[in-house]
Amino acid sequence: MGRTEGRAYERAGVDLEAAARTLDLIAREVESTYTPGVLRGLGAFGGLFELPAGLRRPVLVASTDGVGTKTVLARRYAHEPGVLEGIGRDLVNHCVNDVLVQGAAPLFFLDYVASERLEPEATARLVSGVASACREAGMALLGGETAEMPGVYREGEFDLAGTIVGVVERDAVVDGSRVRPGDAVLGLPSGGLQTNGFSLARRALEGRFDDALSDGTPVWRALLAEHRSFLSAVRPLLERGLVRAMAHVTGGGLPGNVPRSLPEGCGVRLRRGSWEVPEVFALIAAAGAVAEEEMYDVFNMGLGFVLVVGRDDVEEALALAPGALPVGEVVAGSGVAVV
Amino acid sequence: MGRTEGRAYERAGVDLEAAARTLDLIAREVESTYTPGVLRGLGAFGGLFELPAGLRRPVLVASTDGVGTKTVLARRYAHEPGVLEGIGRDLVNHCVNDVLVQGAAPLFFLDYVASERLEPEATARLVSGVASACREAGMALLGGETAEMPGVYREGEFDLAGTIVGVVERDAVVDGSRVRPGDAVLGLPSGGLQTNGFSLARRALEGRFDDALSDGTPVWRALLAEHRSFLSAVRPLLERGLVRAMAHVTGGGLPGNVPRSLPEGCGVRLRRGSWEVPEVFALIAAAGAVAEEEMYDVFNMGLGFVLVVGRDDVEEALALAPGALPVGEVVAGSGVAVV
Repeated sequence: MGRTEGRAYERAGVDLEAAARTLDLIAREVESTYTPGVLRGLGAFGGLFELPAGLRRPVLVASTDGVGTKTVLARRYAHEPGVLEGIGRDLVNHCVNDVLVQGAAPLFFLDYVASERLEPEATARLVSGVASACREAGMALLGGETAEMPGVYREGEFDLAGTIVGVVERDAVVDGSRVRPGDAVLGLPSGGLQTNGFSLARRALEGRFDDALSDGTPVWRALLAEHRSFLSAVRPLLERGLVRAMAHVTGGGLPGNVPRSLPEGCGVRLRRGSWEVPEVFALIAAAGAVAEEEMYDVFNMGLGFVLVVGRDDVEEALALAPGALPVGEVVAGSGVAVV
Repeated sequence: MGRTEGRAYERAGVDLEAAARTLDLIAREVESTYTPGVLRGLGAFGGLFELPAGLRRPVLVASTDGVGTKTVLARRYAHEPGVLEGIGRDLVNHCVNDVLVQGAAPLFFLDYVASERLEPEATARLVSGVASACREAGMALLGGETAEMPGVYREGEFDLAGTIVGVVERDAVVDGSRVRPGDAVLGLPSGGLQTNGFSLARRALEGRFDDALSDGTPVWRALLAEHRSFLSAVRPLLERGLVRAMAHVTGGGLPGNVPRSLPEGCGVRLRRGSWEVPEVFALIAAAGAVAEEEMYDVFNMGLGFVLVVGRDDVEEALALAPGALPVGEVVAGSGVAVV
């Protein structure tokens, strides 16, 4: 039935005045994302979104995802400013990248927040992060569900998942079919773990979250670094028709994600050292005695998003996509080799 | 990144052969739902769905929901045939009804399954239920996420949420604007709790789940009765343009849901006894010493879906909608009175 209302807070023994203020705040955050497609004042049970006019053969691209156990670390540092908001942004940016891979522009988003007990303030901080990332992506936060699940979640823990719907013209779907050996592979830096590998990272670094990296950043902050949206970097390349394939480097790392975007008979060779592997990955490997192969299987190792462009388009692509790096090439074969 | 793959099962210590069989089963279940809109073989990161041709002003209607703590009871009786599958069906049918309220036909669905530890067989049973209800609704299961969240969920517990996207023509959106005092209210029986009120029901009936109702049905089975889809009952009325407003009776019961579908200045009066209140509600009220007002605030009390039609259309509507009952009328005022 959507966001939890006053009556449910009352039964849960929550301070009603505080809950009302929080619900107002959430409502304002949600409304701040509304794009022209949203039909306001309708949709007591579902959100209504009118498709933009003028589409020829619209294909909807949809994806559901969660932020994994990044939530557990976020809860421990929830007293720090921006941490819960950051988890909300992580979720949205993750989903934006997942539909971007097919060339889709985001239309709307729906979130799902569940916990042992209703915590209006924490929920408001999560939703406020979700809303801010939606605004940046030009996407409406069309709906959401807040669930109280006593007996299901551990005390104080929560889960956050979401669903994105984007749109792309049928003939603009990026499907990898134009990829050929010799094409160039560009990478966009992740800056951290994004939202994958947190169960392993927590096991490896337990007790060391408050240590500092060499630049003074606390380990917990490096681990919670935002899952970046690659929409603004990639959009200019899409508009110029330069992109032959894309992969979002999530669970499964480079070997688990890049091959899915390539046609049969193509693999990629990445040049070690052509991008920076953030320090936090070396720390996880050392503290957890994790072999390099497993590190690459679990983590993005510093590349959040990978694009394939024609060899002759590299210069133009690098000029258009801020932050992109030439990291390798497409080869005959299969899989991902880091050499 | 979607359904969990072999690599993750390996790390989780799951029997790999069994996991592979299960993943095959899930893949077949998912494919069995594919409608012509699904673009197969594309969409490594998101699902692709081409909108039906010929729509004039398509409005997408989307909703995210969970099944609440019905999961806790389902887990206890998971050894009984059909119980986990039933939870999957509950989720889909709940969402189908949520977009039906605005007049929308289902297009596609995405599920989210999360638990402490990967349990391939349980996941397959849940997804198989999701898929069967999707097939019945003529809707594609376009995507899904399976998340392992150690440290977040209690041992053995799981959560199941999902997102539906449906479509309706702009001028066919059912928005309550034609509702007038004197209109008739029809109800569709729920047959049970649907997916709301389980935390209260479990508190009230703890230790009595294996008791029998007067017809011999065990209490647990009555509690787990399927959340019905009202799509097939309501569609003929929509096609004839007979429906002025609809409400899906979920969390918040009749008083929390019916008024949201009505225009300012209208309330409804329902006739006590015009529909059957299933025995399980009386049992909850007695065992938990729950006052009648709270019962109506939490549970659907036997009405799963409510429709408003013109007074002169009642006979035709009742003939077209199998199972519908005349249960009351629209009155000047506000709220819901049961008299």
